[in-house]
Amino acid sequence: MRLFLASTSPARLATLRAAGIEPTVIAPGVDEDAVVAAAGELSAADMVALLARTKAEAVAHAQGASCDGLIFGGDSAFVIDGVIHGKPHDPDVARERWLRQSGRSGVLYSGHWLIDNRGGTDSGGVGIVTHAEVHFADVTAAEIDAYVATGEPLTVAGAFTIDSLGGAFIDRIVGDPHTVVGLSLPALRNLVRSFGIEWTDLWNR
Amino acid sequence: MRLFLASTSPARLATLRAAGIEPTVIAPGVDEDAVVAAAGELSAADMVALLARTKAEAVAHAQGASCDGLIFGGDSAFVIDGVIHGKPHDPDVARERWLRQSGRSGVLYSGHWLIDNRGGTDSGGVGIVTHAEVHFADVTAAEIDAYVATGEPLTVAGAFTIDSLGGAFIDRIVGDPHTVVGLSLPALRNLVRSFGIEWTDLWNR
Repeated sequence: MRLFLASTSPARLATLRAAGIEPTVIAPGVDEDAVVAAAGELSAADMVALLARTKAEAVAHAQGASCDGLIFGGDSAFVIDGVIHGKPHDPDVARERWLRQSGRSGVLYSGHWLIDNRGGTDSGGVGIVTHAEVHFADVTAAEIDAYVATGEPLTVAGAFTIDSLGGAFIDRIVGDPHTVVGLSLPALRNLVRSFGIEWTDLWNR
Repeated sequence: MRLFLASTSPARLATLRAAGIEPTVIAPGVDEDAVVAAAGELSAADMVALLARTKAEAVAHAQGASCDGLIFGGDSAFVIDGVIHGKPHDPDVARERWLRQSGRSGVLYSGHWLIDNRGGTDSGGVGIVTHAEVHFADVTAAEIDAYVATGEPLTVAGAFTIDSLGGAFIDRIVGDPHTVVGLSLPALRNLVRSFGIEWTDLWNR
């Protein structure tokens, strides 16, 4: 059984590989900002659900005939103080985010959509949104400066990773740790099983 | 600032590397069974604290003069139903463990001991034990057979990993995910800082 990953996120690819699955990566080519703008006001959970589904369906629509297997789309967002925080891009923005979130907590939402595309035909999709609490350590200004200087926080939602340098600055989580990285493995397993497919049949590494 | 890792665990080494630290690995050469037997009855938390300290001190004692920096020892144990579960080694034991722990939860304890060995002289050590709840998914007998057949669960405490194939079979955790892997990065950061050393000064990758 083949998995097609409708996402260019290196973190999602690394998560699948570590879990024994080498997917075929297909860039979904979705204008995420336009999709969100067209949808109007959305909660973080609804936003990641919409974008995960849009990515999977874009791949099924454009290249489905050559995808014999399952097509997975995913998306993530971080919420703190009721505000969705995306990638900071700018060092000053990343520094300001960390000065605020040090010693506090937020919630990471990950959306998942899976299309049964066996035989190259879309037989329908299923989805789920998971979330995990992230509790940040009390970090010093010197640590924030050093972390921002590495560039790592600039390109990730919420300005942190848990599986790289940022791991030392997160005291605890409540939820599936893979949700924090952007793809909940147990959630994807449940979606796969809902199509009558064994998760372990995806193992190909 | 140099970190010396008094542990041969590949998971601890990988955790440090991902967090930006390339340690010098030194096998502590400790007979763990003999240490535990000599100590008499111990809780899981006391056992991992003792073994973490014993490993760090063994390296400081044998090779301390050539270790200018910090010496870290770590140890982990998994407890379910009040019983400490080590590495199953045998496929039948691993299968039996999973049939019992499917859909249930246990606690992973990780012990940490850090010696300030700057200048090659032991100036004292500090330690902490962390724990994290691990909630297993409902797994099928077919999944257990497939997982055991990979060999992965045979060589790890509790017969599971969270950062490899086993990740899909763990629904959620409560605690620091790195504790589950065997080395809590935020806990080690706190020990490092207790010596007046910045965590980010250990970054060398």
